[in-house]
Amino acid sequence: MGPWVSSCAVRAFASDNYAPILPEALDAIAAANEGHAVSYGADEWTARLQDVVASVFGDGATAFPVFNGTGANVVSLRAMLRPWQGVICAESAHLNVDECGAPEVMGAIKLLTVPTPDGKLTPALVQRRMARIGDEHVVQPGVVSVTQSTELGTLYELDELAALASFAHEHGMLFHVDGSRLANAAAALGVGLGDAAPGADVISLGGTKVGLLAAEAVVVVEPSLASSLLYLRKQSMQLASKMRFVSAQLLALFSDELWRRAAGHANAMAARLAAGVSGAVAITQDVRANAVFAILPPGAAEELQRDFKFYVWDEHTGEVRWMCAWDTSEADVDAFVAAILRVVGDRASVQQRGV
Amino acid sequence: MGPWVSSCAVRAFASDNYAPILPEALDAIAAANEGHAVSYGADEWTARLQDVVASVFGDGATAFPVFNGTGANVVSLRAMLRPWQGVICAESAHLNVDECGAPEVMGAIKLLTVPTPDGKLTPALVQRRMARIGDEHVVQPGVVSVTQSTELGTLYELDELAALASFAHEHGMLFHVDGSRLANAAAALGVGLGDAAPGADVISLGGTKVGLLAAEAVVVVEPSLASSLLYLRKQSMQLASKMRFVSAQLLALFSDELWRRAAGHANAMAARLAAGVSGAVAITQDVRANAVFAILPPGAAEELQRDFKFYVWDEHTGEVRWMCAWDTSEADVDAFVAAILRVVGDRASVQQRGV
Amino acid sequence: MGPWVSSCAVRAFASDNYAPILPEALDAIAAANEGHAVSYGADEWTARLQDVVASVFGDGATAFPVFNGTGANVVSLRAMLRPWQGVICAESAHLNVDECGAPEVMGAIKLLTVPTPDGKLTPALVQRRMARIGDEHVVQPGVVSVTQSTELGTLYELDELAALASFAHEHGMLFHVDGSRLANAAAALGVGLGDAAPGADVISLGGTKVGLLAAEAVVVVEPSLASSLLYLRKQSMQLASKMRFVSAQLLALFSDELWRRAAGHANAMAARLAAGVSGAVAITQDVRANAVFAILPPGAAEELQRDFKFYVWDEHTGEVRWMCAWDTSEADVDAFVAAILRVVGDRASVQQRGV
Amino acid sequence: MGPWVSSCAVRAFASDNYAPILPEALDAIAAANEGHAVSYGADEWTARLQDVVASVFGDGATAFPVFNGTGANVVSLRAMLRPWQGVICAESAHLNVDECGAPEVMGAIKLLTVPTPDGKLTPALVQRRMARIGDEHVVQPGVVSVTQSTELGTLYELDELAALASFAHEHGMLFHVDGSRLANAAAALGVGLGDAAPGADVISLGGTKVGLLAAEAVVVVEPSLASSLLYLRKQSMQLASKMRFVSAQLLALFSDELWRRAAGHANAMAARLAAGVSGAVAITQDVRANAVFAILPPGAAEELQRDFKFYVWDEHTGEVRWMCAWDTSEADVDAFVAAILRVVGDRASVQQRGV
Repeated sequence: MGPWVSSCAVRAFASDNYAPILPEALDAIAAANEGHAVSYGADEWTARLQDVVASVFGDGATAFPVFNGTGANVVSLRAMLRPWQGVICAESAHLNVDECGAPEVMGAIKLLTVPTPDGKLTPALVQRRMARIGDEHVVQPGVVSVTQSTELGTLYELDELAALASFAHEHGMLFHVDGSRLANAAAALGVGLGDAAPGADVISLGGTKVGLLAAEAVVVVEPSLASSLLYLRKQSMQLASKMRFVSAQLLALFSDELWRRAAGHANAMAARLAAGVSGAVAITQDVRANAVFAILPPGAAEELQRDFKFYVWDEHTGEVRWMCAWDTSEADVDAFVAAILRVVGDRASVQQRGV
Repeated sequence: MGPWVSSCAVRAFASDNYAPILPEALDAIAAANEGHAVSYGADEWTARLQDVVASVFGDGATAFPVFNGTGANVVSLRAMLRPWQGVICAESAHLNVDECGAPEVMGAIKLLTVPTPDGKLTPALVQRRMARIGDEHVVQPGVVSVTQSTELGTLYELDELAALASFAHEHGMLFHVDGSRLANAAAALGVGLGDAAPGADVISLGGTKVGLLAAEAVVVVEPSLASSLLYLRKQSMQLASKMRFVSAQLLALFSDELWRRAAGHANAMAARLAAGVSGAVAITQDVRANAVFAILPPGAAEELQRDFKFYVWDEHTGEVRWMCAWDTSEADVDAFVAAILRVVGDRASVQQRGV
Repeated sequence: MGPWVSSCAVRAFASDNYAPILPEALDAIAAANEGHAVSYGADEWTARLQDVVASVFGDGATAFPVFNGTGANVVSLRAMLRPWQGVICAESAHLNVDECGAPEVMGAIKLLTVPTPDGKLTPALVQRRMARIGDEHVVQPGVVSVTQSTELGTLYELDELAALASFAHEHGMLFHVDGSRLANAAAALGVGLGDAAPGADVISLGGTKVGLLAAEAVVVVEPSLASSLLYLRKQSMQLASKMRFVSAQLLALFSDELWRRAAGHANAMAARLAAGVSGAVAITQDVRANAVFAILPPGAAEELQRDFKFYVWDEHTGEVRWMCAWDTSEADVDAFVAAILRVVGDRASVQQRGV
Repeated sequence: MGPWVSSCAVRAFASDNYAPILPEALDAIAAANEGHAVSYGADEWTARLQDVVASVFGDGATAFPVFNGTGANVVSLRAMLRPWQGVICAESAHLNVDECGAPEVMGAIKLLTVPTPDGKLTPALVQRRMARIGDEHVVQPGVVSVTQSTELGTLYELDELAALASFAHEHGMLFHVDGSRLANAAAALGVGLGDAAPGADVISLGGTKVGLLAAEAVVVVEPSLASSLLYLRKQSMQLASKMRFVSAQLLALFSDELWRRAAGHANAMAARLAAGVSGAVAITQDVRANAVFAILPPGAAEELQRDFKFYVWDEHTGEVRWMCAWDTSEADVDAFVAAILRVVGDRASVQQRGV
């Protein structure tokens, strides 16, 4: 067997996307695989999903299942903006750094980015991007978009989100939540999935990272936006023909709060990891969801990566990112903690000996 | 149970997208659902898929798994065109009539359409759209795109495709095959999947309609185009994070020529259907793949649709489309044939009686 | 002097764009060239233009000066459409054949074209493109766009336009008039410029072809669209910084109906040309504005083009287009008529002699 | 007379776009206004412009006249980029802040912005945006774009530009210069217009701000890019039909280095202004071209704006921008200096008196 397999013989901390899909998701696909169903969403699973989404996110909320998070974000924002309006978001937003320009190139959307220390916007930071309102030379702010939980593993408190939503609405903007890891946020906050994004007009609701197969949804809370979504999803190449299999997985995710078990477990593993190494390495962001950001001594990352897969987040600072998933085990974490402590300890002792 | 279920108590002839996924596809998903795998295609299934694709479509051919056919088409064409170049295609092409403007709006591509009687381009028809070459006021033809088998259930013979490919290449154009139903074409022609689109530079290889779940692939035969594809797939929102499950299904489709069994069966059912009704209704297109187009007497479609789902293709002429899928059974067809004969016969006898 | 000059030593019949600008336009530029003026349209000339446009096109009408016709069309249509809506237009529309894909590529707009014998839409032709309303797979008709006078030199009668506007509005669409040669139409119809496009919501008002320098305007008749136009003009790269010079020319065009003199003269010259050759060549379209379309015997075009510049419109049929401009003189026409008659006569006599 | 005129009774310092056009530009338009000329650039003026541009910018350089600076930038960049590539530019670039999203929305281009203290990039700043090369999730840097002279009135030394060009080329990127005010830069540097942007592959050559009417040009120094430009200019709505009038003005600008007289004068007036007020107000940027940036005491800007038009650049800091144009007179400057000194002096004395 090749080098790839050996490198994954242990569990990875690179991405929650490395994990398999939840057994319940697989079961849902299998259970839906019976007989004919009308394509493109006119099936019974998608109909039931609407009921569930309305009960969770509020009356009038509807779900548009899509394939992936970039698709969910682009479709959402296209529905929320006119062509001369842009999106105020954190510089670290997935939208800005990890979608190969899909918002700009495919969505024709300018992002109005704001540097943040922790991946979180505040009304004051949003305010900084609200200049030259009414000036035809300047893209006008039309949407405030935040990520919950953030790309840096941090979390908005509910009142922080509510304040941002109010600020956006008071200034004539809509409020979008990139909820690629909304389940992690809701689990961390101890609230329902529908309560983790207060004030959102549209939510990109993640399914993949928590354990589904090509299953996300645009949840439209503000009903006036729903009719646009219908066309924009298809036009944006995000309409599944055999949609029953996407909807069935999403139904499974809501069923008995599977999302909470899966995401809560991932969060707990991240907390265990952070606790295990906190004396030895600098944790750089609040560990609130399923990510741990840390700074390792020079050379330590390379040595650890021989046995464990993870990403160096910032090549300049040496900051690394460790992600936990629904299937990360305590043993996985403990083995990784032991390795980190060993590698970091070796370096410290070498340094103390003046080498 | 609601009205939807009763209307699908019998098998539908509306779309091959109504069918479930192949048991082998489900098994492949389940089998791949073990342990961690690097995301975004750096997994062993996707690596193996490259080997299979090279063996089937020729050395240097590579596969870029995507979610759906519209995505495959847009990603393919974006890689093949400069911004001032357009796509010569049949007016009836899926690209033109069924993608909600994705090629134009998302791909920024002008389609140079040609009316055809049977959904098939010819070099002479292509020639008609090749005017004002070098004139900066006019979108220049850059790609010829055909659908194999066509949206009208017809088929290109291999020499017809080869002639189109040669014509395109001789005139400095690339050749694209929308192979959403390439399996049906290959099965009908009795050739391998890699032989059903001779001369193609890029193929949109269908998986969904033949029985997969959100699994298609852009097959790049002309190697110089592959590096663009990498970025364009991501940017076009068609990159699956947990790609192993998409690639595993595609591998299953190639395994033991599963595609031939599935598509060949669908084709056979369409032939059976056409044969069964041929004395009673006018079949309007050659039945070569898994579609039957026919003209029914006034009112017959509505009566039949009470028990069987299918689409009226042309509201003006009354032409209808009947599709067969991998799971259409002989009994399904025979029941439908009987119903058609009864409904059409009733009308004929009523007419004969002078009513 | 080079070969170019010799070929233009005589007046050309190739395009109204070959003509110089009107002396009044030059005077207007010169007169405006005094002192400082606020840029981007907040100047007194542009303010006065608004008054004139409101008086001509109706209360509430506003003008957005732009640089050229393609710009006017793209800006207009961008303001009138949502992303999933398209434009029903004639296959021969400038939009479709002469803008290098600007509507599709820059405007992200799908054109829903209709073949016409004479470049003119009718409600029945528009109706043909209104299929699958409400179907998310299909671009929905959002605008009907006509050209007045048409690219083929034909003209809509006022009741024909009114009927199209009503039809569009009754079906929830907006009505756009590409008025690149609206002056020619109004002169031909004997009505005011503001009466030549009844029912239009937005007009691309031509200035260049009638004798201005980089001066056109989007005239927004439906006031609710105006606020979008402001941003879309800038974003579409059609906002002139020193706009006073554009507006001053447009003011000159309206002054004492300069447009009528200029366009009326061009129309008269086309009529003179058509009358002069009508016994000898087949005139293929109604000569209502400043264009004459004709079919010449084989070889005649090439011979004539040695001394007179004009375009072969259709390489297959040999149809040619002859355009007259504000500065075409009777002597120009008469010399051209004489040449045509001579060249065609030579060929006829050769043919009669059985050669 | 209305309120507008009174506010401009004195010369403005708001923008070089407020100035009239140069008498030589007007003369050039008038001189070109004789007889027919082939449209869309196949005229003798445009041919001569090519000769001049090749002599000034180097053999193989060609000019594509366009209407305005935003158009020049978007057309340039569209020719230099593939869809997954972006533009590294200063956060303060006109591209980023003053084009209403034209690069993103019309050009489908992501800008990779870098904060700078003075509007100037350096190789080190460019390096900061060169991360994750080859990673399909990230827009790849394809072009480095600088503005010469910058939006902040600062200037690149020739060796600074050469170093940026080398850096770009060594890293596989192209080098673009937004030369909206290249004439000001060349005049300030005492070099020829063709020497003020060393290493540039494409230059957006400004004409409007130095005194032309709707006349700029994309100068393509790297010949392999020229064929794309032809189509992209038309498609981007920047192709003038009566191009002779644009080209004739550009010819006039090159003739006897008119650009140097016009821009050099504007620069000198800015220097005079800066010198006049330097003891009394804080000048915030190097005054190298025709702009002066300064910070005024609270309330001073509003008082001055009663008589002189200019823009507050940064509402938070109170920084203002004063622009000089080709027609700004010494008397204009002296009057403005006197007013500034008076207003600022009043405030200082008030403050000293402890009020």
